[in-house]
Amino acid sequence: MTVSTTSKTPTSAPLLPADSKSRVSQFMQGIQDEICQGLEALDGIGKFKEESWERPEGGGGRSRVMTQGDVFEQGGVNFSEVWGETLPPSILNQYPELAGKGFYATGTSMVLHPRNPYIPTVHLNYRYFEAGHVWWFGGGADLTPYYPFAEDAAHFHQTLKAACDRHHPEYYPTFKLWCDEYFYLKHRQETRGIGGLFFDYQDGHTQLYRGPDPKGPAANYSNQVGTPEPRSWEDLFAFVQECGRAFLPAYSPIVERRRSMEYGDRERNFQLYRRGRYVEFNLVYDRGTIFGLQTNGRTESILMSLPPLVRWEYGYQPEPQTPEAELYEKFLKPQDWVNWIGV
Amino acid sequence: MTVSTTSKTPTSAPLLPADSKSRVSQFMQGIQDEICQGLEALDGIGKFKEESWERPEGGGGRSRVMTQGDVFEQGGVNFSEVWGETLPPSILNQYPELAGKGFYATGTSMVLHPRNPYIPTVHLNYRYFEAGHVWWFGGGADLTPYYPFAEDAAHFHQTLKAACDRHHPEYYPTFKLWCDEYFYLKHRQETRGIGGLFFDYQDGHTQLYRGPDPKGPAANYSNQVGTPEPRSWEDLFAFVQECGRAFLPAYSPIVERRRSMEYGDRERNFQLYRRGRYVEFNLVYDRGTIFGLQTNGRTESILMSLPPLVRWEYGYQPEPQTPEAELYEKFLKPQDWVNWIGV
Repeated sequence: MTVSTTSKTPTSAPLLPADSKSRVSQFMQGIQDEICQGLEALDGIGKFKEESWERPEGGGGRSRVMTQGDVFEQGGVNFSEVWGETLPPSILNQYPELAGKGFYATGTSMVLHPRNPYIPTVHLNYRYFEAGHVWWFGGGADLTPYYPFAEDAAHFHQTLKAACDRHHPEYYPTFKLWCDEYFYLKHRQETRGIGGLFFDYQDGHTQLYRGPDPKGPAANYSNQVGTPEPRSWEDLFAFVQECGRAFLPAYSPIVERRRSMEYGDRERNFQLYRRGRYVEFNLVYDRGTIFGLQTNGRTESILMSLPPLVRWEYGYQPEPQTPEAELYEKFLKPQDWVNWIGV
Repeated sequence: MTVSTTSKTPTSAPLLPADSKSRVSQFMQGIQDEICQGLEALDGIGKFKEESWERPEGGGGRSRVMTQGDVFEQGGVNFSEVWGETLPPSILNQYPELAGKGFYATGTSMVLHPRNPYIPTVHLNYRYFEAGHVWWFGGGADLTPYYPFAEDAAHFHQTLKAACDRHHPEYYPTFKLWCDEYFYLKHRQETRGIGGLFFDYQDGHTQLYRGPDPKGPAANYSNQVGTPEPRSWEDLFAFVQECGRAFLPAYSPIVERRRSMEYGDRERNFQLYRRGRYVEFNLVYDRGTIFGLQTNGRTESILMSLPPLVRWEYGYQPEPQTPEAELYEKFLKPQDWVNWIGV
């Protein structure tokens, strides 16, 4: 088994279809449509409002926002597609041979903030990048519960695992671990939630996994990742499509189970407090957010991920032996959710 | 006139008193006491609760928090004092000759979040650093109103200017400009508020001012900064003390003027929304916050600056011809507040 941190050696061009960009773009818009329709049906009252925007340097997007739904206090699902002549410095540093080449990037991302504290917040993002002979897919989906329901965490992970397993047996264990590491708040020593999937730079050549960081939050996890066979562009595109379509089946049943549970000020206050961690993660650690803000991205679309109402409280600690304490003890640490067995 | 961005050439040791550290530490604790007493008297109901903490590698601090006061929904005033054998990399890069030298740093910082939207949020920080023959003072104070009262902005600036003018005629114009540039949210194209003073690296040798950035928000300002005479450690310490003591006279009259003004949901909602900018600034741009979080600082003390309750709203824009619009048009851009003349 080989572990490498940044080995991305572009070799001869993989079989990149001539219509790669339009096919991925079409999928990204399609999954935005599918998810928005599914969420409107699930919510029952809330409707998405769409704003289209254009990027002067090339490209544009469709931002869709739902506010004051029955389930969703706020939810945003964005599609964007950008192209240009000049690659961002972060990519040129990795691939100096791409200097002077144009680039293309597209993706769909989503964050949902339900009102009922028993329903978890959820995030999804799938994206594609292409420049010259270099291309890769990235993305994932992860769940951030406020109250500890192990069966919800298990269902979410099992659904994503089933989608992964149809493509490669190492995808789920690898990308689950990567997710635990990526969505980690070092200054709080907490995961953002119970994770899910996260991957980046999937170009068919690279190692599946860059780590894990031997000191990272998932350091005690098994990292028995085999060296995969090379995967084609078609293989990876099919995998990303399957992941995108697994979102509604992974999340909707959790909403249905929790939406009628009654709650009071205690649960609402705890939810608002925990939402603060979402803000801290997105503004301090999330590469996409920071990159977007620093490069004149569309601020309102980037910050649509921030919750509608948030609370901070100095020195808060949950009372022992409460559901809030159980969240900290069990749900803010990496766990083997897919093999969870009911109490 | 010479403008330099990073020229900090340590030469022969300035006259650094043998008891420099203990004198500054005593002042930083004294100003924490003075400000907390003044704020308790001003609030009338709220009291600060103190937590002392120790830093395993050397040093510690006193965090003081007031919540649910009559005026202050939340306020924090922190003193800290740290020392160690190993300099942070950011400082070693600037002063490679300090490798192997120990360091000492102390400071007092404060953020107050009033409940009444007509009372501005305010921030203060004064700090001191010493390692071998290198030392400097830094700090400042700045005001973030939610509603536009030019006389409040003028009073705050005039009070700080008077303190500056007793020490050097270039201090106020220079540090006012630096403040406008530092507390700037590039992704919003807004200043955080109406500014005040900001300075750093004041070691008696360096140029007063590093800029301004010719493309920065204060680019249209006069930058007629003379080359100052060298200033002694005693000069700078006296200046910082005067600034610290100017805080209560700069802020208290504003609180008294606004605390009885009635407000409703509209004003409260706008305040909560604007508080989001405070979060965005502190987590995305503020060097002290980011440095603290990345270097295992005391998270609860660092994030005490975040507001107790915050709102985000996709695509918000103020209605034309309202006080909220006036805030955006006039108060979120650099202005010559000290020369403001009543309407």
